[in-house]
Amino acid sequence: MAQRLSFDELVIVLEDILQKAGTSPDVAAIIAQNCAACERDGSKSHGIFRMRGYVSTLASGWVDGAAQPVVEDAAPSFLRVDAQNGFAQPALAAARPLLLDKLRENGAAVLAIRNSHHLSALWPDIEPFADEGYIALSVVNSMAVTVPFGAKRAVFGTNPIAFAAPVAGDLPFVFDMATSAWSHGDVQIARAEGRLLPEGVGVDAGGAPTRDPNLVLEGGALLPFGGHKGSAISMMIELLGAALTGGKFSTEVDWSRHPGAVTPHTGQFILLIDPARGGGLPFDLRAAEFTQTMREAGLDHLPGVRRHKNRAKALQSGMTLDADAWANLDKLRQFGIAGLNG
Amino acid sequence: MAQRLSFDELVIVLEDILQKAGTSPDVAAIIAQNCAACERDGSKSHGIFRMRGYVSTLASGWVDGAAQPVVEDAAPSFLRVDAQNGFAQPALAAARPLLLDKLRENGAAVLAIRNSHHLSALWPDIEPFADEGYIALSVVNSMAVTVPFGAKRAVFGTNPIAFAAPVAGDLPFVFDMATSAWSHGDVQIARAEGRLLPEGVGVDAGGAPTRDPNLVLEGGALLPFGGHKGSAISMMIELLGAALTGGKFSTEVDWSRHPGAVTPHTGQFILLIDPARGGGLPFDLRAAEFTQTMREAGLDHLPGVRRHKNRAKALQSGMTLDADAWANLDKLRQFGIAGLNG
Repeated sequence: MAQRLSFDELVIVLEDILQKAGTSPDVAAIIAQNCAACERDGSKSHGIFRMRGYVSTLASGWVDGAAQPVVEDAAPSFLRVDAQNGFAQPALAAARPLLLDKLRENGAAVLAIRNSHHLSALWPDIEPFADEGYIALSVVNSMAVTVPFGAKRAVFGTNPIAFAAPVAGDLPFVFDMATSAWSHGDVQIARAEGRLLPEGVGVDAGGAPTRDPNLVLEGGALLPFGGHKGSAISMMIELLGAALTGGKFSTEVDWSRHPGAVTPHTGQFILLIDPARGGGLPFDLRAAEFTQTMREAGLDHLPGVRRHKNRAKALQSGMTLDADAWANLDKLRQFGIAGLNG
Repeated sequence: MAQRLSFDELVIVLEDILQKAGTSPDVAAIIAQNCAACERDGSKSHGIFRMRGYVSTLASGWVDGAAQPVVEDAAPSFLRVDAQNGFAQPALAAARPLLLDKLRENGAAVLAIRNSHHLSALWPDIEPFADEGYIALSVVNSMAVTVPFGAKRAVFGTNPIAFAAPVAGDLPFVFDMATSAWSHGDVQIARAEGRLLPEGVGVDAGGAPTRDPNLVLEGGALLPFGGHKGSAISMMIELLGAALTGGKFSTEVDWSRHPGAVTPHTGQFILLIDPARGGGLPFDLRAAEFTQTMREAGLDHLPGVRRHKNRAKALQSGMTLDADAWANLDKLRQFGIAGLNG
């Protein structure tokens, strides 16, 4: 039957699953918080839906759930982390204090994470910086599932880009979007729910347009959003996420010897800017003016607002997981990936 | 009759026009080089086509063609410039030496230009950084001509974003694109040539979709590329180009008391990264691998390549301006904007 949990209760369940699957307590805490936050905010494609992927990847030996990230101080405004084949989020957590020192001292700072796995949304990585008054931009490449505009084969990952900025007296401005027309997770959900895709989202194994999520997921590929322009942004994301960080390009991800692995092993780029160094009036006041202008122009849904509404509701009255979802978590907790595959 | 000129000859003609229109020799040299480079590279919408706009704006008193930019050292990795109501390109030129020092010392550097006018493409601003081995990203907001996805009124400019990165043994990777579905210049060219626009480029004064460039340019508006995703990127550009720099938002540009003015008076954001601070193999080698992968996937036109082909041709055999274009330049040179309006 459906289960009602508080955010903290869900975190404890997820931590337990992750630790039993082989992560260290530190990593379990970070990934569980992240995953529960996605569920809480209505980012369903990165919520508990992803737990199967975390557990099966850990079971496959593709990712090291107990990796100890190594932080490298490359320059006054440039920090690198070798995630040591672990998840990207613990690498960010390890770098965060020094990264913020660099940002405050120099006005801008780059974090280049490599040798890392990212299976979540990007907004949980950057929204906390906006909460502290900073501007943050992040991109991550993934595995080759998206065909560049005008090309014949998949080269890009879904390659999300996320941006966060503080807004005076309001929630931070945060967007987080795949540069493929859809995210892979949303195509998987469409398949699970038996829905067709809109036009322009994907192609089949032969490169022909299709609306069938099965054909896209089995040998087919996604298309970039926005034609050649979205495609150019996805190229930039490969260059920043992989070439700059020292991570793998999406085409180089090869988990064929690790059946069950689903986490892209690539790199992540994060840029932070301290808007207090900028010109003119305080940034957050100007950002508030701008969001007001957009509302007056008739824009009802500013990026990030829907997530915060979901969050407020979940924090007040808890989250309801349907019976299947809860049963799956319970199987993962008791039996690991065998609980779902058996 | 049609006129054949070398690049340097065209620069001299344009400098002469600009100085007669009231710019200082320094500013004339910078803008003439920039405009001639766009013409040379086939960026026609930012080439000599724009000279009328430069001259009429200078005549209107909206921009100060002799402004002396003031460079402000905000932090070790953050430089600001007050362009003093002049063009953005001389502001960048004034900041460039210190900006490069900051970049080399710290691994990353932000340049925030405000109180500036930008009427050209962005690639001429950033490609030289890639030629020196650096990664560069720039955005500039303009005047409210683009309706946010889901809104009713124009809020964004055409808000271009440009990115440049070095590629070993090859031309730099450079893209430069409006985040509106089309640039304003291209819509103006379509009108001049009597062509209809494709679907999804613009709306008329009532907000209804239209393919008529006249209706888009006269009271209508552009649409963002790529639906809500392109719209989110354009929001980011307003925040970086205006709120961070201290420049005006696109909605705040008001040249109503300066008839003839066409240059947006906003701000420009430039980010530089030194890829030598990154992890793994040298960035430019990895970028070369990546461009090779894209070619193998069937991508014939990598961003920036067509411009470089045009450039090579123009540098070898000069540029041919058709009779009308040459006659217009000659009128601007002899009589200023009255030569074209009379």
